Amino acid sequence: MEQRLQGDESGWWLLSYAGKLWLPKGEIPHGLASEFGLRNESAHRIGEWQSESVWLVCKEQAREMASVRQLLDEDRGLFQLAGRAVQLEEFYRAHKFCGYCGNKMHVSDREWACLCNHCRQRYYPQIAPCIIVAIRREDKILLAQHNRHRGGIYTALAGFVEVGETLEQAVAREVMEESNINVTNLRYISSQPWPFPHSLMVAYLADYAGGDLKIDKSELLDADWFHYDKLPQLPPPGTIARRLIEDTIALCRSEQY
Amino acid sequence: MEQRLQGDESGWWLLSYAGKLWLPKGEIPHGLASEFGLRNESAHRIGEWQSESVWLVCKEQAREMASVRQLLDEDRGLFQLAGRAVQLEEFYRAHKFCGYCGNKMHVSDREWACLCNHCRQRYYPQIAPCIIVAIRREDKILLAQHNRHRGGIYTALAGFVEVGETLEQAVAREVMEESNINVTNLRYISSQPWPFPHSLMVAYLADYAGGDLKIDKSELLDADWFHYDKLPQLPPPGTIARRLIEDTIALCRSEQY
Ligand SMILES: NC(=O)c1ccc[n+]([C@@H]2O[C@H](COP(=O)([O-])OP(=O)(O)OC[C@H]3O[C@@H](n4cnc5c(N)ncnc54)[C@H](O)[C@@H]3O)[C@@H](O)[C@H]2O)c1
Ligand SMILES: NC(=O)c1ccc[n+]([C@@H]2O[C@H](COP(=O)([O-])OP(=O)(O)OC[C@H]3O[C@@H](n4cnc5c(N)ncnc54)[C@H](O)[C@@H]3O)[C@@H](O)[C@H]2O)c1
Repeated sequence: MEQRLQGDESGWWLLSYAGKLWLPKGEIPHGLASEFGLRNESAHRIGEWQSESVWLVCKEQAREMASVRQLLDEDRGLFQLAGRAVQLEEFYRAHKFCGYCGNKMHVSDREWACLCNHCRQRYYPQIAPCIIVAIRREDKILLAQHNRHRGGIYTALAGFVEVGETLEQAVAREVMEESNINVTNLRYISSQPWPFPHSLMVAYLADYAGGDLKIDKSELLDADWFHYDKLPQLPPPGTIARRLIEDTIALCRSEQY
Repeated sequence: MEQRLQGDESGWWLLSYAGKLWLPKGEIPHGLASEFGLRNESAHRIGEWQSESVWLVCKEQAREMASVRQLLDEDRGLFQLAGRAVQLEEFYRAHKFCGYCGNKMHVSDREWACLCNHCRQRYYPQIAPCIIVAIRREDKILLAQHNRHRGGIYTALAGFVEVGETLEQAVAREVMEESNINVTNLRYISSQPWPFPHSLMVAYLADYAGGDLKIDKSELLDADWFHYDKLPQLPPPGTIARRLIEDTIALCRSEQY
């Protein structure tokens, strides 16, 4: 899957290092490898977009390295491939040595994996399943402001699934831990790969079932029940959080509160 | 989270090594640490079951080490905790050295994570999201026999989610790759942690939409459309595959074929 570039390969070029992408003038470079000085670089063909190859080159450029977030407004497929590039680059760099024995590893040539030369162990890229849930209570939605978010955005509750639990248990546990609320009537909506750093968001709607709102100060700055037509600043379109919030607004509206 | 046992701690004892559990006489040891010679061992409290602590001790016993599969018939909560134990043991052993720099790591004392003493990187246990899907075509179900399964069991199609794709895309891709079939009307059913070795199964029902059945010989031994009342040997109760197949049978029945 890894190959040495001759210069005449064409397509989209995702140069990535440490969570960033090379986005000269804010765009993904498109054209021949040679146009971007990539001859002799090692590259991975990681997908197709608009019938052309999409390439990952694990490399940092001196300028114009930016976050994948910049591509959130782009076509969904392009955003996903950019996320794939950033995650694979991080995966390869995070697995140069074997965690079992400390010896050098090499990149598999048949799948996205790293193999130990010494003890033959195999590592696959991590995809961390996360739940995200919009909770409705009659004509109100529970939204929270996260510690790590700047800029006052309120969003749905989310969190990482733990080893040995179901997605449904993760929803109940995360909501209880962060807000002291019980939920019911869980409905799966959809999923979204979220490369910050390597989450797979699994999204649900739920209804309030009980409990007084009490927030976990270590995770949240604030949380509240917001009336569906008096909402605070929301996450941007393209996020699955936004989709859940809009679905909940539609439910509130349809019940004519 | 890790602690040195005094001997008077009580609960359920999950001694795990390399994917196996200590199951003397086929059961999980229950009682005081001292009864099982565990004084001075290092242990992790990984949950609760029947209001008692559940402990992981990363240790191999000379005899009676067995697979978690033996617990599939037990209470769901116990099966999940046993799976958690086996996965955490593997995680700790797979992260003794840092993949970025090759130096020694240590176990975090506030979460299930390993930290590098040298470059400060952090690793979390891998949970690999996998899709599993039962496909209906009128009064028939698509079932497949996997290469790695002995014993002639036919089951639903399943596969690992790739970096940068949604669960829905993973279903479409896996079904196409393994069987050359297109599906529609995807309905999420539920999820199940599956510790072989560290999957989280996300389960869907779907309907046949087109394509001639053509199987991927590298993954499947055989696959076919089975009439709902002439089914082959199915996966055991307790598996999410079995649940999906039973849901599909119920759908076939309710449409009175
Ligand atoms: N796409 C969206 O609409 C959307 C909206 C909200 C949150 N999210 C994402 O959901 C995820 C979870 O949100 P959060 O607010 O709980 O996250 P967070 O980043 O605040 O993480 C909480 C804690 O979880 C632990 N953690 C980090 N990575 C982990 C892993 N792989 N496994 C287990 N534990 C881990 C760490 O201790 C961390 O401090 C994040 O990736 C976040 O970006 C996405
Ligand atoms: N609980 C159930 O009812 C049920 C039923 C069927 C399958 N499963 C599980 O579903 C999973 C997938 O089934 P399958 O038949 O495709 O599996 P498989 O074990 O045949 O794996 C297929 C290939 O995927 C690759 N792979 C392995 N681990 C990976 C990872 N973490 N990320 C990416 N690729 C990886 C390997 O190349 C492997 O050969 C397995 O864990 C299996 O045990 C569960």
